[in-house]
Amino acid sequence: MNLPGKIAIMGGGSWATALAKIVLSTQGSINWYMRRPESVEEFKQLEHNPRYLTAVKFDISRITFYTNINQIIKDSDTLIFATPSPFLKQHLKKVKASLTDKFIISAIKGLVPDENMLITDYFAEYFKVPIENIAVLGGPCHAEEIALERLSYITLACPDIEKVKAISPVFKNQYLMNSVCKDVIGIEYASVLKNVYAIVAGICHGMKYGDNFQAVFISNAIEEMRNFVDAIHGLERDITDSVYLGDLLVTAYSRFSRNRTFGTMIGKGYSVKTAQLEMEMIAEGYYGTKCIYEINKKYNVKMPILNALYDILYEKKSPTTVIRQLTETFK
Amino acid sequence: MNLPGKIAIMGGGSWATALAKIVLSTQGSINWYMRRPESVEEFKQLEHNPRYLTAVKFDISRITFYTNINQIIKDSDTLIFATPSPFLKQHLKKVKASLTDKFIISAIKGLVPDENMLITDYFAEYFKVPIENIAVLGGPCHAEEIALERLSYITLACPDIEKVKAISPVFKNQYLMNSVCKDVIGIEYASVLKNVYAIVAGICHGMKYGDNFQAVFISNAIEEMRNFVDAIHGLERDITDSVYLGDLLVTAYSRFSRNRTFGTMIGKGYSVKTAQLEMEMIAEGYYGTKCIYEINKKYNVKMPILNALYDILYEKKSPTTVIRQLTETFK
Repeated sequence: MNLPGKIAIMGGGSWATALAKIVLSTQGSINWYMRRPESVEEFKQLEHNPRYLTAVKFDISRITFYTNINQIIKDSDTLIFATPSPFLKQHLKKVKASLTDKFIISAIKGLVPDENMLITDYFAEYFKVPIENIAVLGGPCHAEEIALERLSYITLACPDIEKVKAISPVFKNQYLMNSVCKDVIGIEYASVLKNVYAIVAGICHGMKYGDNFQAVFISNAIEEMRNFVDAIHGLERDITDSVYLGDLLVTAYSRFSRNRTFGTMIGKGYSVKTAQLEMEMIAEGYYGTKCIYEINKKYNVKMPILNALYDILYEKKSPTTVIRQLTETFK
Repeated sequence: MNLPGKIAIMGGGSWATALAKIVLSTQGSINWYMRRPESVEEFKQLEHNPRYLTAVKFDISRITFYTNINQIIKDSDTLIFATPSPFLKQHLKKVKASLTDKFIISAIKGLVPDENMLITDYFAEYFKVPIENIAVLGGPCHAEEIALERLSYITLACPDIEKVKAISPVFKNQYLMNSVCKDVIGIEYASVLKNVYAIVAGICHGMKYGDNFQAVFISNAIEEMRNFVDAIHGLERDITDSVYLGDLLVTAYSRFSRNRTFGTMIGKGYSVKTAQLEMEMIAEGYYGTKCIYEINKKYNVKMPILNALYDILYEKKSPTTVIRQLTETFK
């Protein structure tokens, strides 16, 4: 396997656009898949993404656009998936080309809906990609700050660490640093859990809990996250590394996080249903909560925060009562 | 020793005022020391602290005020010190009364200037208080949020854990929870280091590093803090507990933190001298940096953040260069 080979960006959203900018800073050219031909046409005309990170100009001559997912797979070696997780399946159901000899990087945070599977498990199970050819790209990284070239850090994980070491120069430039590790599963679960915790941070914020409480909340949340990922995937890891703690911080403290906003509405008294209807896209942590709750039936990790959110979202319990009880468990 | 016995609040600032409010929520009466007789007179007249947390009303009949530090020591059993650390020595130099049979709680974050000693060491060495009678009160706790009765959490630490267990009900009410542990030294050093890190967070903010970076910075800072306190005082501790991580978060993310503001000015290009002159009171992390730097000569813990700040503050190195080099060490 010659890594990285030809790189494809899969998806046309803001995170995909940020990743295209990064990859073009180190590679001569890229392939780029977008679902809608109109988007590609408009992109070519404007020389930037018509809808996301519009200030980022691209040299169109260095990009080969595709709207045919099978063609881009055939023409590429390393595929970076950056579609929002709820849309992944609808992209992939068109795939006939073989993925088994491709290197897959999931930059998707979340789970495959319905199956409630980790993204990497989905590629392994449904597309027969060997797990040593699947990596995740994680870390605290708002796409908007990549657009502004503000110094950011990502982590690349793969069971075959030599492969991500070979890939890592693709993601290193004057505004981006990276680390590599093997903890694919831990990073994926952590990135689901951080959305769960961002909802709860939002609920507490909506209920007027203050900054003292927020800091205590994060401390308890990161310990709960550690206990869960340590139980589910025994591997030496440091939960304070930026790919876990940093990602939680950037999500839970951000007023632009969809998950936090969803929580804030619930905290202010909206019903879960109304909060969902008000949001353009359902907050990923909503599904993540149920998924982790189900998985944890097997592991029985003490997860008072997750359980509290499950009770609010799925058992229609009163947020005020549930959160008050939750606060009794904190230290 | 009958704990808590009669409780004295030592100091007239905002943190002392918040603590007085807390203690009066669980105790019938308190003694309260303030240096200036005018402050006491004004307080009695207004029924609130004339300068700090002025919205917090007090029932004056439950407070015995003192301006004589020796008298309040004689009349009290548990003394809660809450003066800012730069003023502690000038209060204590008047002390003739014995402190050896008192229970001391330090709610002071910082170090004794000149001596560069931990507050608890200062009481032990200069006032012969047995260390099992000295506790610290730590945790992420803005006084302003106590005034608003927003749920907060503190941690009480003492080598004799039974003593802080006996004291802990004093600090538990509907807006305050607490934990107890033995880690006096770790908590004190952590509360010095969080001011160091808040200055660096401010410098980076002033230089326009963004939220992605801030999250990475905190992740690296908490690991550096852990490595230092683990080296200096071997004790099982969880650095993600709110008394360590939470306190760092509330300080480093707060735009009202004196230390962060001091750093922001340096990051914006002010010289260290000018930044100091512009501030009403010198940021505590300024002294903390030198103190920890000196101590660490013995322990040789890898502390790139502390060293970077030392170079900026004491070696007059260029913040831009130093911070850029620092970012190379992060992950």
